[in-house]
Amino acid sequence: MGNRLPSKPAPSLQTVILALQTYWADQGCVIWQPHHTEVGAGTMNPATFLRVLGPEPWNVAYVEPSIRPTDGRYGENPNRWQHYYQFQVILKPDPGDSQERYLRSLVALGIDPARHDIRFVEDNWEAPALGAWGLGWEVWLDGQEITQFTYLQQAGGQTLEPVSVEITYGLERILMALQDVDTFVDIAWNDRLTYGDLHLQAEKEHSLYNFERADVERLRLLFDEYEAEAKASLAAGLVFPAHDHVLKCSHAFNILDARGAIGVTERAALFGRMRDLARGVAEAYLAQRQAQGFPWLRSGDSREPATRPPEGDRAAPPSAPAPFLLEIGTEELPVEDLEAAISQLEQAFTQLLDEARLSHGPLKVMGTPRRLLVSVEDLLPRQAERLTLVKGPPADRAFDGQGRPTQAALGFARSRGVGVEVLRVQEIEGGRYAVAEVREPGDTADHVLASRIPEILAGLRFDRSMRWGAAGVTFSRPIRWILCLHGEHVVPLNFAGLHSGRITRGLRFQSPEGLRVRDPGDLLFRLKQQGIAPDIAERQEKIRQGVEALAAEVGGRVSDDPALLREVANLVESPVALRGSFEARYLELPRQVLVEVMRKHQRYFAVERDGRLLPYFITVRNGGSQGMDLVAHGNEQVIRARFADAAYFIRKDLEKPLEAHLPRLATLAFQARLGSMLDKSARLERLAAILAQDLGLSASERSVVARAAHLSKADLATQMVVEMTGLQGEMGREYALRSGESPEVANAILEHRLPRFAGDRTPESKAGLVVGLADRLDTLAGLFAAGMEPSGAKDPFALRRAAIGLAQNLIAHRQRFDVRRGLAQAAAGLPIQAPPKAIEACLAFINSRLKGVFEADHRHDVVEAVLAAQGHDPAGAAKAVTDLGRWVAHADWPETLQAFARCVRITRDQPAEHELSPDRLTEPAEQALFEALRRAEARPRDDGSVEDLLTAFTPMIPAITRFFDEVLVMAEEEALRANRLGLLQRVAALSHGVADLSRVEGF
Amino acid sequence: MGNRLPSKPAPSLQTVILALQTYWADQGCVIWQPHHTEVGAGTMNPATFLRVLGPEPWNVAYVEPSIRPTDGRYGENPNRWQHYYQFQVILKPDPGDSQERYLRSLVALGIDPARHDIRFVEDNWEAPALGAWGLGWEVWLDGQEITQFTYLQQAGGQTLEPVSVEITYGLERILMALQDVDTFVDIAWNDRLTYGDLHLQAEKEHSLYNFERADVERLRLLFDEYEAEAKASLAAGLVFPAHDHVLKCSHAFNILDARGAIGVTERAALFGRMRDLARGVAEAYLAQRQAQGFPWLRSGDSREPATRPPEGDRAAPPSAPAPFLLEIGTEELPVEDLEAAISQLEQAFTQLLDEARLSHGPLKVMGTPRRLLVSVEDLLPRQAERLTLVKGPPADRAFDGQGRPTQAALGFARSRGVGVEVLRVQEIEGGRYAVAEVREPGDTADHVLASRIPEILAGLRFDRSMRWGAAGVTFSRPIRWILCLHGEHVVPLNFAGLHSGRITRGLRFQSPEGLRVRDPGDLLFRLKQQGIAPDIAERQEKIRQGVEALAAEVGGRVSDDPALLREVANLVESPVALRGSFEARYLELPRQVLVEVMRKHQRYFAVERDGRLLPYFITVRNGGSQGMDLVAHGNEQVIRARFADAAYFIRKDLEKPLEAHLPRLATLAFQARLGSMLDKSARLERLAAILAQDLGLSASERSVVARAAHLSKADLATQMVVEMTGLQGEMGREYALRSGESPEVANAILEHRLPRFAGDRTPESKAGLVVGLADRLDTLAGLFAAGMEPSGAKDPFALRRAAIGLAQNLIAHRQRFDVRRGLAQAAAGLPIQAPPKAIEACLAFINSRLKGVFEADHRHDVVEAVLAAQGHDPAGAAKAVTDLGRWVAHADWPETLQAFARCVRITRDQPAEHELSPDRLTEPAEQALFEALRRAEARPRDDGSVEDLLTAFTPMIPAITRFFDEVLVMAEEEALRANRLGLLQRVAALSHGVADLSRVEGF
Repeated sequence: MGNRLPSKPAPSLQTVILALQTYWADQGCVIWQPHHTEVGAGTMNPATFLRVLGPEPWNVAYVEPSIRPTDGRYGENPNRWQHYYQFQVILKPDPGDSQERYLRSLVALGIDPARHDIRFVEDNWEAPALGAWGLGWEVWLDGQEITQFTYLQQAGGQTLEPVSVEITYGLERILMALQDVDTFVDIAWNDRLTYGDLHLQAEKEHSLYNFERADVERLRLLFDEYEAEAKASLAAGLVFPAHDHVLKCSHAFNILDARGAIGVTERAALFGRMRDLARGVAEAYLAQRQAQGFPWLRSGDSREPATRPPEGDRAAPPSAPAPFLLEIGTEELPVEDLEAAISQLEQAFTQLLDEARLSHGPLKVMGTPRRLLVSVEDLLPRQAERLTLVKGPPADRAFDGQGRPTQAALGFARSRGVGVEVLRVQEIEGGRYAVAEVREPGDTADHVLASRIPEILAGLRFDRSMRWGAAGVTFSRPIRWILCLHGEHVVPLNFAGLHSGRITRGLRFQSPEGLRVRDPGDLLFRLKQQGIAPDIAERQEKIRQGVEALAAEVGGRVSDDPALLREVANLVESPVALRGSFEARYLELPRQVLVEVMRKHQRYFAVERDGRLLPYFITVRNGGSQGMDLVAHGNEQVIRARFADAAYFIRKDLEKPLEAHLPRLATLAFQARLGSMLDKSARLERLAAILAQDLGLSASERSVVARAAHLSKADLATQMVVEMTGLQGEMGREYALRSGESPEVANAILEHRLPRFAGDRTPESKAGLVVGLADRLDTLAGLFAAGMEPSGAKDPFALRRAAIGLAQNLIAHRQRFDVRRGLAQAAAGLPIQAPPKAIEACLAFINSRLKGVFEADHRHDVVEAVLAAQGHDPAGAAKAVTDLGRWVAHADWPETLQAFARCVRITRDQPAEHELSPDRLTEPAEQALFEALRRAEARPRDDGSVEDLLTAFTPMIPAITRFFDEVLVMAEEEALRANRLGLLQRVAALSHGVADLSRVEGF
Repeated sequence: MGNRLPSKPAPSLQTVILALQTYWADQGCVIWQPHHTEVGAGTMNPATFLRVLGPEPWNVAYVEPSIRPTDGRYGENPNRWQHYYQFQVILKPDPGDSQERYLRSLVALGIDPARHDIRFVEDNWEAPALGAWGLGWEVWLDGQEITQFTYLQQAGGQTLEPVSVEITYGLERILMALQDVDTFVDIAWNDRLTYGDLHLQAEKEHSLYNFERADVERLRLLFDEYEAEAKASLAAGLVFPAHDHVLKCSHAFNILDARGAIGVTERAALFGRMRDLARGVAEAYLAQRQAQGFPWLRSGDSREPATRPPEGDRAAPPSAPAPFLLEIGTEELPVEDLEAAISQLEQAFTQLLDEARLSHGPLKVMGTPRRLLVSVEDLLPRQAERLTLVKGPPADRAFDGQGRPTQAALGFARSRGVGVEVLRVQEIEGGRYAVAEVREPGDTADHVLASRIPEILAGLRFDRSMRWGAAGVTFSRPIRWILCLHGEHVVPLNFAGLHSGRITRGLRFQSPEGLRVRDPGDLLFRLKQQGIAPDIAERQEKIRQGVEALAAEVGGRVSDDPALLREVANLVESPVALRGSFEARYLELPRQVLVEVMRKHQRYFAVERDGRLLPYFITVRNGGSQGMDLVAHGNEQVIRARFADAAYFIRKDLEKPLEAHLPRLATLAFQARLGSMLDKSARLERLAAILAQDLGLSASERSVVARAAHLSKADLATQMVVEMTGLQGEMGREYALRSGESPEVANAILEHRLPRFAGDRTPESKAGLVVGLADRLDTLAGLFAAGMEPSGAKDPFALRRAAIGLAQNLIAHRQRFDVRRGLAQAAAGLPIQAPPKAIEACLAFINSRLKGVFEADHRHDVVEAVLAAQGHDPAGAAKAVTDLGRWVAHADWPETLQAFARCVRITRDQPAEHELSPDRLTEPAEQALFEALRRAEARPRDDGSVEDLLTAFTPMIPAITRFFDEVLVMAEEEALRANRLGLLQRVAALSHGVADLSRVEGF
């Protein structure tokens, strides 16, 4: 029987299940049972996958033993097993308070929210094989993910209308927290047996089976057979048997995947086949229910009632300037969406108030994950009056010969609501008309805002928007309340099925959550009272101070990490920093692993001293000071499990040398038409060798390049990197060293990934430079050739990063390189034909990235001038931009430029190159210029050097001045004219390949 | 949403599940989850199949959605679906009060046992594919089977030690009762949706899939693949993956079975393969747990403590004759076991008291399903004294010349505990010895009984015995208490871990159940008080009266059915008859179907008037008068569902003509070496044609025979007969008529089965006779040839019935027939060689049945005499037995027999036939006898006719008398002697083929 059962009484796993079943039954849910064939998640149970389709209401809750072969760890990981228990809840339609219902279920399990940190952290869910996706969150309990909370948007390729709320509890995680145990193994299942007693042996065996023993050919065969049976069932209209067989396909696929047997092409193909089946099942189910008349539909069932406008709240609109405040209360917004909303609201409200002639004091837009606030000071109660001149009938028809108004004038005046006596005659566009000056009295701010704000809200755009209730509105996340006050008056809005009011909600779990406020100031005061800082900057500062203080307490500090700070600040309303620790032995793991795990998985700040990590982390909870120990302890458990997982991965990965991981790259897709990562790796190897030769690397460098290129992608197949892609390169280096590769090769493997993000370092070694160059050239050429260039804001293959990195490295190494040639060499190695246009577009793309890089430090015109001439050579261009920048700053630059410009301007519209024949230089000034040109041309110059160009050119200025003073370029005689033009063309040509100086300001 | 939700509040299905989970969790059970692959029953979940193995304690409860493809009815049947919910409980080891725990769980669901009829009805469970079996009961709630209650004895071929108690609730059945609904469809799942809402569509689809669509070749392939994967897993020591694949095999098999795709040979082979796998899994699991040191074993856990001897009950043994009563309290005994126990106890106690010299008054053994009672009146408190003569040393060594005792005599006397002065000398077997008369004082009855009764109990034999607790005892069902009183004294027994006491238990659900009694009379009084009739005859009489009265109330009567009466009487302790009714429309079903359903499935008495059934039934509940309506109503629901099922079967069966069912006979085994029922059907057809010819049937009769033989077995493949084999023949006739066969053919199909049981009618038509004859000859010859003749009481193929039926029919039709010839013809058609010895044994077997038939009405010697001569011809023998019986009753029979005997006796030891040469007949008396013989021989006689024989013989008597008076048979001259012997042999030969009169008494 189990060891380490907790001494304090805590609910057992089976008690928790019973409690959840009871709780959700009381919420009107059908209590359902696990499905009769293996599923990876409760979503696949027909009680979810089928029942979320169509308009019928459906509320259900059930346990689902979920099987995910690739998650197997032979029972060694504390909280990741291939078999675990989900508790699944579906609420359809959204009852409007799903989050609160969920949170109350935690209370029913004995979790006191005041003593814990419970958070909704953005997490969007997608199951490509099921044609399903949704938006929502992970729910964190003291840093531990205990639940997935999702508003399902599609299933089986069908748009869900209404949307279903899917709540998926990870039972073991909750139990670990409740029972304060460190691993699944020690969870008390009941009062006698542990989870380990009941499941550990099976977990070991299934892991071994899935990873090592399952017969691959047999699984492929089974997949085919199940698919055939699914199709046959669909053809016979048998939805449920068909669905079962889709699930069997999926399970067979999952084991194949765990066996590492699925190559890129096969993976895509199998996914496609499953998706087709899933769509077929969904369509068939819908058709079936429709044919049955959607029997569960009852009027009213599927629609939530809009909130009623508040009764008896009749505070009149203000009659003098008064503060205005709009609060959009939401479920937790993703970080990016919060920022996007703030900036869009700022712009939209400024524009609104301006256009609506509502004068006002300072406007400020703020936000937290749970609310967007638009605050306007001293907003006038009424629009400014507007005078408009309205054109009426022609003057000669409006007034008779005596200047008396005609019937036409009377009619016009009446229609505009003015007396005929105020009509005037005015000339408009050459005619004369009767006109009226119409005075529009301003509308009330109340009316304007009530009608315009909903439009603004409807117009907000997010990366991904979702539907929830029945109002047909989309937003980043569901809107749950709207507060809109002008002074003490409620501005009556109606949006997303909600009426505005004066009720706000405070910090979650603060009692009472619903707060009635008097006016905008009162709202801000109340929020502050609850510790909510609506302003992002304020939260960031509070976090920064808290984190630094906590780090200092243990003699450490945290690295600057603005991105993390920004993210964390946008995850909470009321930031409270707290410190946790972990076992020092984990510090033996690679530093980058520790940092990545803390940062990426948990949004923790790592603590260091003298460049070495300390066994602490700092996290930020959302308000509250109760149970700090509990929260810290919970977070410590999480990070411990995470580190244990990392240690497991590394141990597993090191069971074979790095090179031996290569074959598995065949199972990783690069891009459909470009093949697997193994294919890419081979191309990279070939290209790197060419580049190393071209760039004149030494023999020993070339051998480092060859080996590093060969191994550069191998770590992608290791478990550590599969788990945390951010460690790619770092792990390659680590594993290479541990596999006995030379330090040079190991470093080059890491360096080929540099820079990984803006501000990251660049490779030090030539070898690293070259391998990275080869990688990026292949990526860029390949994806452009495949028609996958970025469009709009979308850049799924991070081509912008690739282009910038390519340029930055060449610049950093001052490595001259013709990107055009590089792209051509890369294109030659692709498995597909690269159209010339694509390569051109690619070059232009790189250019425009380069421009961005330069423009951070240099004048726009300077950059343009250089790039126009040598955009294909980033290092050269970089030097040229710097040089030119210096030149244009000189006092005598205008003279220089002018001299050069005179030569260029007169020749630039010439359709052809004219031949320069020295014999025909008749005038002395001509001859002098020619002589100066020859001297300039004779000076040794580095390719593309602005310095050399201008140093050569400056001495020519007097000759140029004289030439234009004395010589008529455009002579009558054609031969003469041509010869002079030819001379000037030779002068202009000095700048070819260096800079297009015509783009410089003042030209 | 569902219709007909019950208006009164009743728990929903999901509420019941929660209640059961809560209840069993409180009993210390692990609450487990359904398995992740299809199973036919909760037993297959590893939580049962694996965990019941080995010594470790294990208590678990879980819902198991169970899938049994062949049970699909497209959702049309009210309570039989291919997908349904079991609630499974395992208690290991048996806690000693499993039944009571179970019954309390029903109370927890809101079932008031006092208002219902709750019964434990024998039902033994076996899963050959799992190598598993157990003994136990169906639990009936008002006639509805709601639970299987089993003491598991084996699993995976492993004997279970300790035994596990398996309780399997049928949730839907319980819900139907609780909610008072007629069909699964209408069960309220929660307060909004019904079972039909949630499952009906899937049930229809799965039925269609399983019966009509699943790809047969694919399923065979899947079976093979799963098996291979199971084997590979076992080879790798992976128990759980192996078990999963065994389950997948089983499910594939089940669908194949539903598709009707499995022939006899294949079925046996697949079963064997699954059994081998299951054994492998079980062995591997056991080895694994053993290697882990059986980690769940804790001292004391797996052993129930024996009950403690009652303290402070010190009533002394009686000092005068006093009543004795032993009560063995059991869980419900099967009917057969109850009867077997009573008769064995009667014999054993009689013998015990006799041998133990315990004189006593009348001894009576009684019993109910829950108790065995041995009652003895006036039992002496002590054995009678015993005197024994003990032989000592020879007299001459015991006494010296002076007659004084020697040392030898002194030693002998001392060793026997007597004084030397009492030694006497006595002659024994020709020698003279010193002897002592030893007086043994009787032991107390208390001692004798205490030591001998446990031996008697241990010696009781049952058809199948079981183990339960840890005492290592086997019995028909668990023994739960022992009461043993001699007067007021508790006789201290110890058996099966129990100590005897003075506590009895009354009728279940009567309060209090445990009753303390003073003495035997008190016990019997208390039982009577509770309505318990311990005497079977008394219960039978009570039932008979109750049933008749209830039938009379509706103007009907019930047929005599002693077997049913006996069974019902042994199912209850306190019989209370009650009447229910059903919809008159069901009377349209074939009568035999209705009667069989009522009788076999439900043990109901059918009610009829003027030979037609009335829409009523009478059932017998176990005590109680509360809730009679409720009980009747429950039973009505059951029978309605049963009738609906029958109607469904018949409708399905009639979807094609009878002949079209024939091919499916290939899927039914007859016997392994004799092939399928289709093979048997073909043999029968061939043999019937031969017999029809041999028996001289007319051409039209022969064509009826041919057609009827062809169709005779077809109904075995129909669903109605598969469901109720007792309807074989009846359904054949019904379906034949509905398929357009002639009435003659239809009748012959039914008649070939006649007589089906003792007392049944025999066929009227020659065709029916012949087809039945062919069937039985094939069965008998075949099974004897295959070595499957009955042994002991076992007769799995009902060969006794076949032999008797064969004889009875021939007799009834007075159809002379040489069974020897018939068997030879049958043997010629068999697929295996029939050894001559086997056919001889078969004939002897038929003969001995025939003897049994005749001896019911005739003198033993008469029967023997006839059978010795013509046992091969039942009809002839029957007539001969009757005739001979009449003759031997005549007053002059001794004279006749004597005359014949004189001829036989003198010749019977002659090794050879002597030739009779009339020329050598020298004496007149010889010649006269010869003349008389010639006259007798010349009389026309029917083959085998006793009448003809004796009518011919009687006139010879004077000649015989004279012959022996005047002639010396054993003449000196050999030729003369031989001739005279030859003459007498001719006389004796008159009886050849008629009767062996030497076997008649008085010969």
